[in-house]
Amino acid sequence: MSNEWKTSISSSGEDAVIRGEELENVMDMDFADAIFLILKGEKPKKAESKMFKTILSGAIDHGVGNPSTVSARTVQSGGNDMNTSVAAGIMALGDAHGGAIEEGMNILQSEKSAIEIVEEYLEEGKKIPGLGHKVYDETDPRTEKILDRAEELGLSGEYVEKMKAIQERFAEEKVRLVMNVDGAISGIMSDLGFEPELGKGFFIIARTPGLVAHTREEMDLPDFRREDGEYTGEE
Amino acid sequence: MSNEWKTSISSSGEDAVIRGEELENVMDMDFADAIFLILKGEKPKKAESKMFKTILSGAIDHGVGNPSTVSARTVQSGGNDMNTSVAAGIMALGDAHGGAIEEGMNILQSEKSAIEIVEEYLEEGKKIPGLGHKVYDETDPRTEKILDRAEELGLSGEYVEKMKAIQERFAEEKVRLVMNVDGAISGIMSDLGFEPELGKGFFIIARTPGLVAHTREEMDLPDFRREDGEYTGEE
Amino acid sequence: MSNEWKTSISSSGEDAVIRGEELENVMDMDFADAIFLILKGEKPKKAESKMFKTILSGAIDHGVGNPSTVSARTVQSGGNDMNTSVAAGIMALGDAHGGAIEEGMNILQSEKSAIEIVEEYLEEGKKIPGLGHKVYDETDPRTEKILDRAEELGLSGEYVEKMKAIQERFAEEKVRLVMNVDGAISGIMSDLGFEPELGKGFFIIARTPGLVAHTREEMDLPDFRREDGEYTGEE
Amino acid sequence: MSNEWKTSISSSGEDAVIRGEELENVMDMDFADAIFLILKGEKPKKAESKMFKTILSGAIDHGVGNPSTVSARTVQSGGNDMNTSVAAGIMALGDAHGGAIEEGMNILQSEKSAIEIVEEYLEEGKKIPGLGHKVYDETDPRTEKILDRAEELGLSGEYVEKMKAIQERFAEEKVRLVMNVDGAISGIMSDLGFEPELGKGFFIIARTPGLVAHTREEMDLPDFRREDGEYTGEE
Repeated sequence: MSNEWKTSISSSGEDAVIRGEELENVMDMDFADAIFLILKGEKPKKAESKMFKTILSGAIDHGVGNPSTVSARTVQSGGNDMNTSVAAGIMALGDAHGGAIEEGMNILQSEKSAIEIVEEYLEEGKKIPGLGHKVYDETDPRTEKILDRAEELGLSGEYVEKMKAIQERFAEEKVRLVMNVDGAISGIMSDLGFEPELGKGFFIIARTPGLVAHTREEMDLPDFRREDGEYTGEE
Repeated sequence: MSNEWKTSISSSGEDAVIRGEELENVMDMDFADAIFLILKGEKPKKAESKMFKTILSGAIDHGVGNPSTVSARTVQSGGNDMNTSVAAGIMALGDAHGGAIEEGMNILQSEKSAIEIVEEYLEEGKKIPGLGHKVYDETDPRTEKILDRAEELGLSGEYVEKMKAIQERFAEEKVRLVMNVDGAISGIMSDLGFEPELGKGFFIIARTPGLVAHTREEMDLPDFRREDGEYTGEE
Repeated sequence: MSNEWKTSISSSGEDAVIRGEELENVMDMDFADAIFLILKGEKPKKAESKMFKTILSGAIDHGVGNPSTVSARTVQSGGNDMNTSVAAGIMALGDAHGGAIEEGMNILQSEKSAIEIVEEYLEEGKKIPGLGHKVYDETDPRTEKILDRAEELGLSGEYVEKMKAIQERFAEEKVRLVMNVDGAISGIMSDLGFEPELGKGFFIIARTPGLVAHTREEMDLPDFRREDGEYTGEE
Repeated sequence: MSNEWKTSISSSGEDAVIRGEELENVMDMDFADAIFLILKGEKPKKAESKMFKTILSGAIDHGVGNPSTVSARTVQSGGNDMNTSVAAGIMALGDAHGGAIEEGMNILQSEKSAIEIVEEYLEEGKKIPGLGHKVYDETDPRTEKILDRAEELGLSGEYVEKMKAIQERFAEEKVRLVMNVDGAISGIMSDLGFEPELGKGFFIIARTPGLVAHTREEMDLPDFRREDGEYTGEE
């Protein structure tokens, strides 16, 4: 029977702590720093703190038409509260929606070399996480911003290098693709020492405020959103 | 047919903005400031920024035994991914779990006076949101911290006053109860100009990192958590 | 501490029972009868069984454009499994989506008379649950089918009468509206002795197979459904 | 842009159909038959109908301590409605909770022989879906009941045979394990012509009434279930 609930994350009550830090002290921390602490078990250094907030703030929202926003707003329109609606938005963040960061961190932190990774993806005909953009061919300005900041802060390390090596190798083998934001984040998060298992978690944390804002906006619209549907009959 | 998806919150693509602010500039903002922006439609002033991060960081997690943590970890143990598990945790944040902030903001921002509010709650035999604590009788140190900070920052206004007036009136009518953290947050969020409809949203945003951390921790434990259950037969 | 999990619903293991009935015997029951048993704590009589399956089968699905179907399919398109997608569909079934059955059962089983109910709804300018249809003015053929069947089976009782009385009274006070399927179901479920608290539950049970079918269909379509969104700027 | 919502499952409105069958006729069908229709696109034959209801009724609930029940009830205790609570229960039905049916259907319907399957699972040290039981060593009475019924009804075919062959081969290679209910269901559902992608769907449909009943029971208990938690500090 496993009805034992043990944790190394936090405690409640008078002596409440977060990862060993008293909650009262956590209240003095920047929210992004508190997030870093609870995920990593240690406070960020100054440079890490600056990098981390850039990544979180940059992913806070991205328009109204994507699956997570549509899910959250549609569920709200069925007559539901904030918590249920935001949860439906987060549920949409599956492998095809934000999953590239986790997959990117996985390949970067694997034993495989950039050459082996490109070979494997080409063989299987799969899209390499972190490469390619619908609009940009040469450079993606947000990727540049993230990579430049990492460079300035002295945080760009072996995983950002590996991501660039994957990009190079793919250019040699097939075509030059721009490194997208997911690629930059995968590299830097790995260089910051985070595990791939938290890749989706960053995205969820960053996007939740956007989902709250969309749900709030939807509350002022009529209930029961209806899409035009068509019955095509039995095939 | 309402298959029109319009929003004043954000756009995607090359010219992506958040509430009118270019996404590239948002990447330079503190994450808590970006949250303030997306929820309120304007950037926080310096004092507001300090206040807001205190509130978010202070609610980041609170031990392992509460319903949201139990839900998230139990769903993970059924063999589920990060997004589904965290969503289950957020779903647990219903009226009885973090709902006091929204209810508190509602009564503070209503037309009713402190005297009328206390009278109404006493008549209906309901618990007044923001008053009472399991442990503290005199003062709750975290409430004090929040209220002192609001005072220092010049942000304590009419709604914090109204919350104190409710506390006073209740003491006159029945018994002195400590103002708890929900009461302090309800007052200050109202003084910062936020609507009650966002009360639950703050709590969801603040607690999501905790749910990510708990889900990650649960991933390393055996699948299929089982509680001791007992069949009591038909009554 | 409430970590005691007691139930009168079922047990597991060798001697597994459902509401006191051995699971092996439940395996011989019609699924609709097993549902009746687990919700009500007793097996349906023959007439009740016939009535109950009509109601469940009639609500199994209703096109592709409503909020629950859109949510389930959108979440699947984000790269999610069956369980997460179906759950998102069920989450959409809030007060504005299937909620009329529960509200209808509530007013029928309240102490208030038909006259008082109509008066109250007219005063508050609210829509009476169970009355009105977008298409039908005179009669709704599915309502007729349900009511006729209840009549034949000798199951139409005081609550169906009260629903008709509400319809009559509303016609006297304002305008004749057709009784819709929600109205018929509210009346008959009440006459079958079910509580209002289960009103939404019937609908969830009946619609889940539809959500499974839609999710399966969506699995064969491209990932990441995107709606056309428009950024309207800050107001 | 994929904001086209086409379906071959159902339509709404006056001429509503389910898989080409008029909704008014579907209202005359047994609920289990309507489920068969919506999932498979055709009505069950008489024998198929009997088999199908046995499988659904047999999985309707299984005690209070498993992850799906705990999730549903915990979310309800946070102050949530029926739909949100039941959804949380369904979310828990991930790979480790009911996933053996889907995995079983997958291996049975794969090109691989029983010998190859056993070899592969033994090599990878994985548990073969459908084999083994915590309590029963010789025979599992519910498995027997399902298999006997399939035999009587003339529905036991190549996939049930393949499941038995896997059991035999495993006995030769390692040890005799009882075929459990998941194994029997995997075989018969495959013999009924269902795809593995629906394996989890059957289980969700069958278990939803149980989750509704548990959520209803929890509504009468105090809010905010709390488990005993322990903070173990930082490792």
